[in-house]
Amino acid sequence: MAEISESHPRRKSLIARQIIVDATKQGLLADSAMIAHGRGEAFDYLLGEKTSEIAKLSIKEAAARLIAAKHPVISVNGNTAVLAGKSLIRVAAVLKCPIEINIYYRTEKRMKLLYDFLELQRMDVSKEENPMDWSGDWETAVRDVKILGKEEDGSIDGLEGPRAICSAEGIEKADVILVPLEDGDRCEVLVSLGKGVLVVDLNPLSRSAKMATVTIVDEVSRMADLLLEYIIINSSDITEWDNDLALEESLKVISINSNNE
Amino acid sequence: MAEISESHPRRKSLIARQIIVDATKQGLLADSAMIAHGRGEAFDYLLGEKTSEIAKLSIKEAAARLIAAKHPVISVNGNTAVLAGKSLIRVAAVLKCPIEINIYYRTEKRMKLLYDFLELQRMDVSKEENPMDWSGDWETAVRDVKILGKEEDGSIDGLEGPRAICSAEGIEKADVILVPLEDGDRCEVLVSLGKGVLVVDLNPLSRSAKMATVTIVDEVSRMADLLLEYIIINSSDITEWDNDLALEESLKVISINSNNE
Repeated sequence: MAEISESHPRRKSLIARQIIVDATKQGLLADSAMIAHGRGEAFDYLLGEKTSEIAKLSIKEAAARLIAAKHPVISVNGNTAVLAGKSLIRVAAVLKCPIEINIYYRTEKRMKLLYDFLELQRMDVSKEENPMDWSGDWETAVRDVKILGKEEDGSIDGLEGPRAICSAEGIEKADVILVPLEDGDRCEVLVSLGKGVLVVDLNPLSRSAKMATVTIVDEVSRMADLLLEYIIINSSDITEWDNDLALEESLKVISINSNNE
Repeated sequence: MAEISESHPRRKSLIARQIIVDATKQGLLADSAMIAHGRGEAFDYLLGEKTSEIAKLSIKEAAARLIAAKHPVISVNGNTAVLAGKSLIRVAAVLKCPIEINIYYRTEKRMKLLYDFLELQRMDVSKEENPMDWSGDWETAVRDVKILGKEEDGSIDGLEGPRAICSAEGIEKADVILVPLEDGDRCEVLVSLGKGVLVVDLNPLSRSAKMATVTIVDEVSRMADLLLEYIIINSSDITEWDNDLALEESLKVISINSNNE
């Protein structure tokens, strides 16, 4: 594919697309990952490719809930890993929580590829400067982030077959889960188990978006960078979150953008 | 991928997705074809996965313009061929016009694969019953449809490199072109050459949608089946088509659907 010029107005979106195409070729993603990404592109286009005010509020709410959780975990699938792996490792380091690789079309090969990919990303992140406003030993904090998923010693009650597999120390034990780009069925079951489910989904009409405790309608890498900031600042409390109202607000953004063009 | 149940409310969309995934594996499509398809899925979702009233009007307008054309041609890329190949061959048979394979990332291998694919589809279509309300010798009509594209003996003035390649008898000579899922640059140049450019694009905000003479904001296979009906009925005349107004109408449909959920 052609070089993407520095000045292209949709540069970030085109780079993300290339990341997904390359990761597919490397076997990191499932067959339909590119289609899912394309759907996301379209919704992000309608959102103006920026984080809306309601998305910011929902990221703040997610930050407060992750900080207050006893056993928070960040669940990562293929698309999330390649688009926002480093950012989410930073979030995990600050939260001192594990990351769990949890993919819908589970194969041993893809699990291993994603594990190695995230381990490399973790190594890179451990060599970075401290994040802004965060004090402590960054290298140690990042090295302490566990990448779970391969052990397959837990299960999600209410699901069957490979979809039910998870890590006992991760999703099974978690009281609050950040699950970007999650499947609707799994999201519904996690909620029914009494867990706080924080979903990131560009489609405010998706089943996951509707099922979640808090839905962040934003692009996953933009969301992850902002989430890190909010967690470090730690300035907001958990609210009585009305997720349906928040989804309506996101739909309004899409509706207004479609009307104003 | 799992079987798609007969009763699934989004069955057609899921089948189309599977067609694109399979065609990608068979090498018929470019790397980013699945991403483009996913974008389309999202817009179609917002359109309620049905042909809107304004889309019907624009298909009627396209039908009238194709019937009135001296040298109409149907330009087909990979996604269009696999999603709507048979339907567009039927349209070409009724219009007595050629189909031209014209792909953005042109390689000899993909051109040959698509040519063989369309030839097979043409054979299948030639064995069908007459389309409703059409009288004549269907087998002969279909066998007479030329599949152009491989000869590469024409060029599109104003474009450079492989993008400029076309068939002399097809796009170069055409006064009216139906180009589903066309790239913005190429669409702009075709319009600047004075040709009537009838675009099919699910994104009413895309450059192609904005550049075209008539933009049909609809899913390509639904569009193709309806276009065939309208061409056979042949009941409407060319109008003074205001494409900007039509695009605004399509945006309103998206906006209303986003607001009403």
